[in-house]
Amino acid sequence: MVTIPEMFECDVFDAHCPTRQVLDRIADRWTALIVGRLATGTQRFSELKRDVGGVSPKMLSQTLRGLERDGLVERTVHPVTPPRVEYRLTPLGTTLIGPLASVRRWAEQHIDEVHVAQATYAKRDEDPVPWLIARS
Amino acid sequence: MVTIPEMFECDVFDAHCPTRQVLDRIADRWTALIVGRLATGTQRFSELKRDVGGVSPKMLSQTLRGLERDGLVERTVHPVTPPRVEYRLTPLGTTLIGPLASVRRWAEQHIDEVHVAQATYAKRDEDPVPWLIARS
Repeated sequence: MVTIPEMFECDVFDAHCPTRQVLDRIADRWTALIVGRLATGTQRFSELKRDVGGVSPKMLSQTLRGLERDGLVERTVHPVTPPRVEYRLTPLGTTLIGPLASVRRWAEQHIDEVHVAQATYAKRDEDPVPWLIARS
Repeated sequence: MVTIPEMFECDVFDAHCPTRQVLDRIADRWTALIVGRLATGTQRFSELKRDVGGVSPKMLSQTLRGLERDGLVERTVHPVTPPRVEYRLTPLGTTLIGPLASVRRWAEQHIDEVHVAQATYAKRDEDPVPWLIARS
């Protein structure tokens, strides 16, 4: 365990600051989606796999393990046959619902403006510089 | 350009929804840091490279280009020798400052709780299952 001195000033912009590792975990598309789904309640692995479109079992498993390791998600194995494994947010994890919901909402609210920008960008003729390509 | 029907219901959980592509761009550690730095004002490439610790020139360049393409960042080339290239947030980009700041702040505010959780997780003896490893 890394002990942080009491007066330590956290700075996510510093690659060596312990907070950067936390940012790496939470500023992530899969975390944003998984936490969003768990915000609605306890979920089984198969339910998350179904509801988080496009996630591979490996990526889901890896992200859940990371979230569990960081204390955001609690994994419970029920001793039935076959074992039932459930995931839910911890109290710490629930504090992340708001920030990540605002990021997901941004994507949904600004999709039209992003599409207009993409169309404008595609029309510009400066990318890449044609004669540089032709010469290389 | 993908045209979204007026009644289209956006859902970032759907891998085929256009909003997912936007989420992929913004729920990203480098976007969170670059937008955070640009929130303080116009920056040159070298300034961003210096201030966003740990970012490679390739990743910085790639992320900036993506943000420019999506209309979040504006790139200006000043015709001086050598050319001065500056980046700043567009009005659309500034609307992302708040959501991403709350994600960065979460990392800085909850680092202690995450470290306690990591230490607890490390002490548990169930990861990985030893006999499975020994047999493989």
